[in-house]
Amino acid sequence: MPQIDLNSDVGESFGSWTMGDDAAVFQHVTSANVACGFHAGDPSTIAQTARDAVAAGVRIGAHVGYRDLAGFGRRFLDCSATELADDVLYQLGALQALARAAGAEVKYVKPHGALYNAIVHHEVHARAVVDAVHAFDPTIPLLLLPGAVAQRTAEARGLTALSEAFADRAYNPDGTLVSRREPGSVLHDPAAITANMVRLATEGIIVATDGSELPVQADSICVHGDTPGAVAMAAAVRSGLEAAGVTVRSFA
Amino acid sequence: MPQIDLNSDVGESFGSWTMGDDAAVFQHVTSANVACGFHAGDPSTIAQTARDAVAAGVRIGAHVGYRDLAGFGRRFLDCSATELADDVLYQLGALQALARAAGAEVKYVKPHGALYNAIVHHEVHARAVVDAVHAFDPTIPLLLLPGAVAQRTAEARGLTALSEAFADRAYNPDGTLVSRREPGSVLHDPAAITANMVRLATEGIIVATDGSELPVQADSICVHGDTPGAVAMAAAVRSGLEAAGVTVRSFA
Amino acid sequence: MPQIDLNSDVGESFGSWTMGDDAAVFQHVTSANVACGFHAGDPSTIAQTARDAVAAGVRIGAHVGYRDLAGFGRRFLDCSATELADDVLYQLGALQALARAAGAEVKYVKPHGALYNAIVHHEVHARAVVDAVHAFDPTIPLLLLPGAVAQRTAEARGLTALSEAFADRAYNPDGTLVSRREPGSVLHDPAAITANMVRLATEGIIVATDGSELPVQADSICVHGDTPGAVAMAAAVRSGLEAAGVTVRSFA
Amino acid sequence: MPQIDLNSDVGESFGSWTMGDDAAVFQHVTSANVACGFHAGDPSTIAQTARDAVAAGVRIGAHVGYRDLAGFGRRFLDCSATELADDVLYQLGALQALARAAGAEVKYVKPHGALYNAIVHHEVHARAVVDAVHAFDPTIPLLLLPGAVAQRTAEARGLTALSEAFADRAYNPDGTLVSRREPGSVLHDPAAITANMVRLATEGIIVATDGSELPVQADSICVHGDTPGAVAMAAAVRSGLEAAGVTVRSFA
Repeated sequence: MPQIDLNSDVGESFGSWTMGDDAAVFQHVTSANVACGFHAGDPSTIAQTARDAVAAGVRIGAHVGYRDLAGFGRRFLDCSATELADDVLYQLGALQALARAAGAEVKYVKPHGALYNAIVHHEVHARAVVDAVHAFDPTIPLLLLPGAVAQRTAEARGLTALSEAFADRAYNPDGTLVSRREPGSVLHDPAAITANMVRLATEGIIVATDGSELPVQADSICVHGDTPGAVAMAAAVRSGLEAAGVTVRSFA
Repeated sequence: MPQIDLNSDVGESFGSWTMGDDAAVFQHVTSANVACGFHAGDPSTIAQTARDAVAAGVRIGAHVGYRDLAGFGRRFLDCSATELADDVLYQLGALQALARAAGAEVKYVKPHGALYNAIVHHEVHARAVVDAVHAFDPTIPLLLLPGAVAQRTAEARGLTALSEAFADRAYNPDGTLVSRREPGSVLHDPAAITANMVRLATEGIIVATDGSELPVQADSICVHGDTPGAVAMAAAVRSGLEAAGVTVRSFA
Repeated sequence: MPQIDLNSDVGESFGSWTMGDDAAVFQHVTSANVACGFHAGDPSTIAQTARDAVAAGVRIGAHVGYRDLAGFGRRFLDCSATELADDVLYQLGALQALARAAGAEVKYVKPHGALYNAIVHHEVHARAVVDAVHAFDPTIPLLLLPGAVAQRTAEARGLTALSEAFADRAYNPDGTLVSRREPGSVLHDPAAITANMVRLATEGIIVATDGSELPVQADSICVHGDTPGAVAMAAAVRSGLEAAGVTVRSFA
Repeated sequence: MPQIDLNSDVGESFGSWTMGDDAAVFQHVTSANVACGFHAGDPSTIAQTARDAVAAGVRIGAHVGYRDLAGFGRRFLDCSATELADDVLYQLGALQALARAAGAEVKYVKPHGALYNAIVHHEVHARAVVDAVHAFDPTIPLLLLPGAVAQRTAEARGLTALSEAFADRAYNPDGTLVSRREPGSVLHDPAAITANMVRLATEGIIVATDGSELPVQADSICVHGDTPGAVAMAAAVRSGLEAAGVTVRSFA
C-alpha cells in the first residue's frame, strides 16, 4: 500500500498579526512545520499551535529560519556558520519546550524560506543546519528539497534526510522547480494538482512542464494554508490521495 | 560545616556588544545565571557561555527576562500571564538546547531585572513564571528574593524556592534592600562585604543599616562581574568565605 | 456649519503580516494615524501608506507607540522619560521622512495603545510625549482623550491639544469610556452609532449609559478599519454626518 | 593649503551595551557617522551622540545599515530595492529629528558595514541607497569607497559622491583594500599610518603593499574609536596632519 505524508507551515502568526488558517490546515495534514520565533511565531502562538497539533493528531516539526522578522525569513542573511548553527539550535530548543508542555515532541526539522532555498546549494549554511540538528537530536529527520546539498551533508553526518514535493508547483524537466518569476510556476487547478499527487504517491512520477515523466521519491507533500483556496486545495489533495488508496500518514 | 552558593549573571553580551567579564566570573562563582535572549544573550553568546560554564564546573541557571532588548529587561512590561509564561518557557527551552550541546542541563531559574523585582509582589506575573518552570521541569528550583510572592506561589505549586542575598547591597531593618535611589544602598568595601557574607553563611545574620541583626536564610549569594571592581569583590567574597571554613558549592 | 474630523489607525501591517483594510479606510476618514515602526508598521508599509494617504487627500498623523512589536504597543512599558521622549522623536522623524517622500507632512500626533492610555494619568510619560512633539514641531497638535493629563501638559508647554470621541464606545456618566471588560462597552449598531455621532457633532452631546447627556467637545471622531464591519461603520458615520449637514474635514 | 576631513563611527551603543569611546573620538574627528538604530544606536544613544557632536563642533552624518541588530549590520541581507530604500529613508528621518533637537542637521550619509561593502558592486542596493538619499535631501553627499558602483549611481542621479581612505588598512596595487582575511591587512604603527595619511593629504598618494604609488583622491580619512589604541591612532593622525600643514576640516 502506498503511503505519504502531507506537511504545511503553521504557527506563523506574530503578536496581533494573524497568518493562515491553522485550524483548517490541521484537518488535512499529518505534519505541521511550526515557526520557531525567528521569522514568525511568538511564544504564545507557538504554544497554542502545539496544543492544536496535539489535539488534531498532527506531528510537530521545527520550521527554523533566519533571524529576520521584518522579512519573514524570506531574505538570505549572510550569517556565519556558528551564528546559524546556534540560531537553529536555539529555535529547536524553544519549540521543544513549548511542544513538550503540549504533550508532544519535535519530530523533524524543515528549514524555512530563504534558509530552505540557501541550503540547496550553500555548503556552509547546510552544514550549520545539520550541525544544529545533530546537536539537538540526531534521531530526527530533516525534510528538504530532493537533491539539496543539505541532504548529502545530513546523510554524511548520520542524519536522515527526507524529501518533499510541492503540490502546487510546476517542475522543470531536470527536476527543479520552475522559478516563481516565470509564468505557470504555480498551479491552481485542484483536480490537476490532485491527479499529479496521486501519481507521485502511487507511481513515484511527476510530469514536468515539457510532458516528460520524472522519477521523484517524496516522503511528504507540501501544501499551503495561507488562503481559503490553499486550504481547499489541501483538502482536495488529501481526499484524492485517500480515494486512490494512498495512506496519508506522518513519516515520523 | 556551613556551605553556600555564589551566583552571578553571565552571557549578557549581544552580537557585537560585550558585557561583563564572564571568564573571570567563572573562576569565582558556583552558579551562572545565563541570559536567554530576551533581555540579553544571542544564541552564540549563550552557546559559548554554556561551554565556558561546563569547563569551569559551574552550574547553569536560566536568567529569564521580559522581552525587551532595548531596555535590557530592566523595565516592567505589562504583558499577560499567558504571554509571560510562554515567553519564559520559550527561553528555558532555548537555553536547554544550547546547554545540552555543551554537555550540561539547566539546573535552576533566576528571573532577571524588572521581572525579578515584579514577582516580589505581582501575583499574576509570579504565577506565570511558576507555571512556566513547572511545565519545563518541576524538579528544578527557582532562585528568588526572600519573601517574594513568587516564593509562596512556587512552593504552593510543589516547586522548590531558594533564597539569595546580595553581597553589595545594604539592608533595611525590615529585611528589604535599601533602594538604589538612596545613598549608601550599594556597598563598595570588599573587606566589609566579605565580613558580612561570612557572618551570613556562618550565623545566618545580616546587619541592617541601623545596626540591628536580621536573621536571613540564604542558599546563595549574588555577586557581580560587570566591572573589574565587581570581579575583585567576587574573588574576595569567595576567598573570605573559604578562609572562614565555609564550603562554597552549588545548591544544585 | 458644524464640522468635525474622522480619524483611523492605518499602516499597521508589518512585513508579511497584513492588518486592516487601509484602502477602504482612506475613502471615509480625513485623518490617518500612521504607525511609525515601534508597535507596527515597517518602513515600506509606512511609505506606501503615506502615498495612499496623499492620493486620498487624507492628513497624516504620527501614531507613536511603545517599543513593543510583540505586544503591538498594547502593553504598558515602564521606560524612563528620556527613553520615551527619544523613542517618540525617533518615530516622528522616521515618519516625516517617509511622508515627505510622498509629498506630505506629519500634521499631528496621536499616541497609540498603551501609551495613549498611560498618558491619561501618567505624568512622566505624558511630559515625555509632549517634550518629543515640542522638539519635533511645536506647531502640530496632539490628538488625545479629553481630560488626559497629557492635554494639560501639552497646553502648558504651548502645544495644541485636540480631543477625540470614540464612535463605537459607550460612555460612563462621568465622561470616561466604559471599560472593555464590561458588557456593552463596545457598540455595534451602525444606525445608533451614527445618530450618536451626529448629535455629538451638531450639539456637542454624548448620551451616557444611564441616559444622561454629557457635554463633549470633540475635534475628531475615531473609527476603525480592522474588520469589514468596522469599515462599514466608518462609512455609515461619515455619510450620516454629511446627511445631517456636518462638514467632515481635517482639523489640520 | 591642503585640507581633509576625518570621520569615525559613533553612536554605536545600544541600550545597556556600550561601544566605543565617542567622547574621545569627538576630540579628533570632524565628521561623525552616527548609527541610526537598525544595526546599532537606540534613540537615546543617538540623541546624546548628536548633542555631543554639536558640543564638539563635529558634523553629523547618517551611518545607515541593514536591519540587523544581532549582526551589527555586518551581514549581507538580501532585501529588495524597495525595502532597502524605505529602510534607509526611515533611518535618515529618525536621525534628522534627533539631530535637529540637538541643533544640527544630517550633513551626509555613509552606509555601514555590509551595506557599505555591498554597494561597491551591488547595483540594486546601490540604487536603493541613492534613491533614499535623493528622496531625503538631494543636496547632501554620500561618503563611499572610491570606485564603488554607488558612486557612479549617485552622480548619475545628481548627488555628490565623496571618497574616503582608511588610515589603518593596507592597499593592494589595484587600489582595493587588502582583505581582512589576509595577514598585514590592518596597520598598527601610528607613526607609519600618520606618514601615510600626510602623504595622501598633501600628495594624493597611497603606497600599496608592493611599494607602488597609487594616486588616490580622498575627501575624508576614516579612523576608529572602538579601542584605546584606535583613539590614540586617531589623535596621532590628526596632529600629524596639522603638523604637516594640512587643514583638518569637514567637507560639509
